[in-house]
Parts: sequence; structure tokens; C-alpha cells
Amino acid sequence: MTEPSPDSYPRTPRTTVRRLGDRGRYDRETVHRILDEGLVCHVGFVADGQPFVVPMGFGRDGERLILHGSVASRLLGRLSGGVPVCVTVTHVDGLVFARSGFHSSMNYRSVMVLGTATELADPAEKARALDAVIEHLAPGRSREIRPMSAKELAATRVLELPLAEVSAKVRTGPPHDPDQDLELPIWAGVVPLATVPGAPEPAPDLAEGIETPESVRRWRRPADSR
Amino acid sequence: MTEPSPDSYPRTPRTTVRRLGDRGRYDRETVHRILDEGLVCHVGFVADGQPFVVPMGFGRDGERLILHGSVASRLLGRLSGGVPVCVTVTHVDGLVFARSGFHSSMNYRSVMVLGTATELADPAEKARALDAVIEHLAPGRSREIRPMSAKELAATRVLELPLAEVSAKVRTGPPHDPDQDLELPIWAGVVPLATVPGAPEPAPDLAEGIETPESVRRWRRPADSR
Repeated sequence: MTEPSPDSYPRTPRTTVRRLGDRGRYDRETVHRILDEGLVCHVGFVADGQPFVVPMGFGRDGERLILHGSVASRLLGRLSGGVPVCVTVTHVDGLVFARSGFHSSMNYRSVMVLGTATELADPAEKARALDAVIEHLAPGRSREIRPMSAKELAATRVLELPLAEVSAKVRTGPPHDPDQDLELPIWAGVVPLATVPGAPEPAPDLAEGIETPESVRRWRRPADSR
Repeated sequence: MTEPSPDSYPRTPRTTVRRLGDRGRYDRETVHRILDEGLVCHVGFVADGQPFVVPMGFGRDGERLILHGSVASRLLGRLSGGVPVCVTVTHVDGLVFARSGFHSSMNYRSVMVLGTATELADPAEKARALDAVIEHLAPGRSREIRPMSAKELAATRVLELPLAEVSAKVRTGPPHDPDQDLELPIWAGVVPLATVPGAPEPAPDLAEGIETPESVRRWRRPADSR
């Protein structure tokens, strides 16, 4: 491990970005920002030698990720068993059109977290962690919904994964074509991409007279881009 | 394996969706549509017992996925060595706001492909596969850019992964709250999400007088939503 610092995650041989190493980022601010913008993570685990990659909702709560699911889920049961996992969150920010396919690329930000998840047992602790997931997905929403019942808490498995062995990878900016390609009569540039919410669609069984709350009406990603 | 059919992928014990099994889809049309809308896939593989999940650009070409990268990439080298991989593509289509956290959800579509990748050796075959990747990401673009040079082809590793052991999982529609929650004064419904392109940003080194081509100007996801 190199460069211990309160503002950065320690680099390990497993998290140090090798290919295009200048895209590697290890500072907490960059990592937190990428995670906080995420709606789903991709969870990797191994079963009988076969890797599986499963999309899951999640939340970041300080220096841990929260995962959750039904106690009936074989996946959650497996993850809670102390097996090594990899959780990856990715945003595609733009398509990078170069004059050749070879130099074409994407602008993206991704975070990879390696580690082992631990199951939360205490109901109050589980409820707080699930609130963090709701707040992650829609800030303010946890104060609008009804609280979890004891039965629902018992039916939900909640896991935490510490942000300990973490790295980010980021590409930004225009294409980088070699000089000899610059005079070709071919357009080059970037098409930026964004995740954009449409108008909220009330549930068919929504009672009359219930206003759309701010957590829904003003939902944006990233949350501070309002 | 069950239900062999020309229109569907055979179900295997590893691809049959168990939890919420009614969300499982195995028909080729659904699978192809989800893959074709994807910009990145998440590739899972195992190294020294640790799973890794890495985002990569990709293309679908008929009944195979094409992955590619530098011959200097350790990751691509590993994947070409006949190791088991899992490739997952996910779209988040909406946030599902229920009256409780327990029943809140997301609308999503995901595809999981299990198998072993094979490296393409023939330069002409590699060039065709890479064109398929470009066409996947931006239909029409492969005819606008300059062709790959022999040197570039030699520096690029191209892998194919057959669409053989494949499943999809799909959630659509409004939240499903239990009857006793319907009278709570809490908003419920869906916020639909879309990936939306911004105005194309020409490269700083773009020569004057080059028009933005249709492949860029009309870029949309899904491609047939123009």
C-alpha cells in the first residue's frame, strides 16, 4: 500500500490502475461523488468457480456501502457469508468520436470496491442503514414514507461493505487523434450524456389530493445539480 | 436445460431467475434489445479467488458479444485465456416510489451472459468485429471514420463471447403497495429515467467547415427511438 492520507484511499496492488494509469483516482471526494450519483451497482461474486455480476440498488453511508435484499435471496445469503466481492459503479458521461475507431472512446467515471460484506443483525441498525439507502436514491424521501415494520425488517437482509480497498477511474475531455489524422475531413468531438428524469407518473391507486413531494418533483442526478 | 426454442435461449440452472421469477425473460428479442441499448457492459472474472467487475464498451453482432482492448491490457489477456466470465448489461428505466421503503423499487432491464471468450486472430475478422462495435455504439459511424491500420489492428485484442447461456430480468410498472398502505397520505408512483444526449461538442482541433454527421447529430438510445 502506498500514499496513506486521510483524504485518499490507500492504493493496493489490486486497486492500482495500471493501463492508462493517469485515469486512476484514489481521493475520497472523487470516489464519494461517483458513488453518490449511482443508482445501481454491479456486484461481482464467485460461485463454483463461475463469476456472477448482478445489478443491485445500494446506498453510501459514510465510509461504507449498504446492500440489501430479501432473506429469501440466495445471492444475499451468499454475500453475507464472508465471501470476497467486487462492487462497481459506472457513469457514462459522453461518447468520444475520434477520426478513427482506434482513438474513439467514452468519457466515464467508475469506482471499484473490493472487500467482504458483513450482515447487520440489530433491527435498529438495519433500519438506519435502509434509511441511508432511501436517502441515497432520493434525498428527503426517508422522512415521507411510513417506517419499516418489524416484520419487514425481519424479512430484509442488510449488508455493509467498508470502503477500504477502493479505486476510481475517470476519462474526460475531447478525443486525442494523432497529428496525421487531423486533416482528414471527418468530424470529431464529444456527445455528452445525462440521466434525465421525466415527469412523475402517479400510481393508479394514488388517492386524490396528494401532492407530488419535493423529493420526487425535484429529483435530479447528481442530487446537487438542482 | 428447458424449453429449447429458436426464439429463446435455453434455460440452465445458472441462468434461471429464481427470486421474483416472473421477472425472468429468455427470449432473444428481449435480450437483443437490452444489449443493443447498452453502452457499457460490466465484465466479471476471477483472479486469485477474488472477483473483479470492470466496465467495458462492447458490441452485439448477431449471437455474439464483442469485447476489445489493448494487447497491453492484463485484463484482456486474462479474458482471452479461456476463463469463465459473466457479462452484465443494465438499464435503469425508473425509480419506483412506494408508500414504504420496503415496497419501493426500480424499473430496470438487465441481461447476464455466462461463458468463455475466444480471441479473434485473423486481422480481417478483427476489423469486421470492431466495425460491429462502432455500429453498436453509433449506427452509421463505421462508414465515416478512417479504416483501422494494420498496426492498430495488431495492437488491439478482440474477443467474442457467444450468446449461449443468457437470461434477462425486467421490472416495469407502478409500485405495488399492500392494501393497508393505500390510504396513507403518501405520494406513490414512478419517475421515469432516460439517457439523453446533449449538443455535440466539436473537438478543439476540428478543422473548419466539417459538418456534424447524422450518426452524431441524431444519436439516440435506443437507436430506433429517433
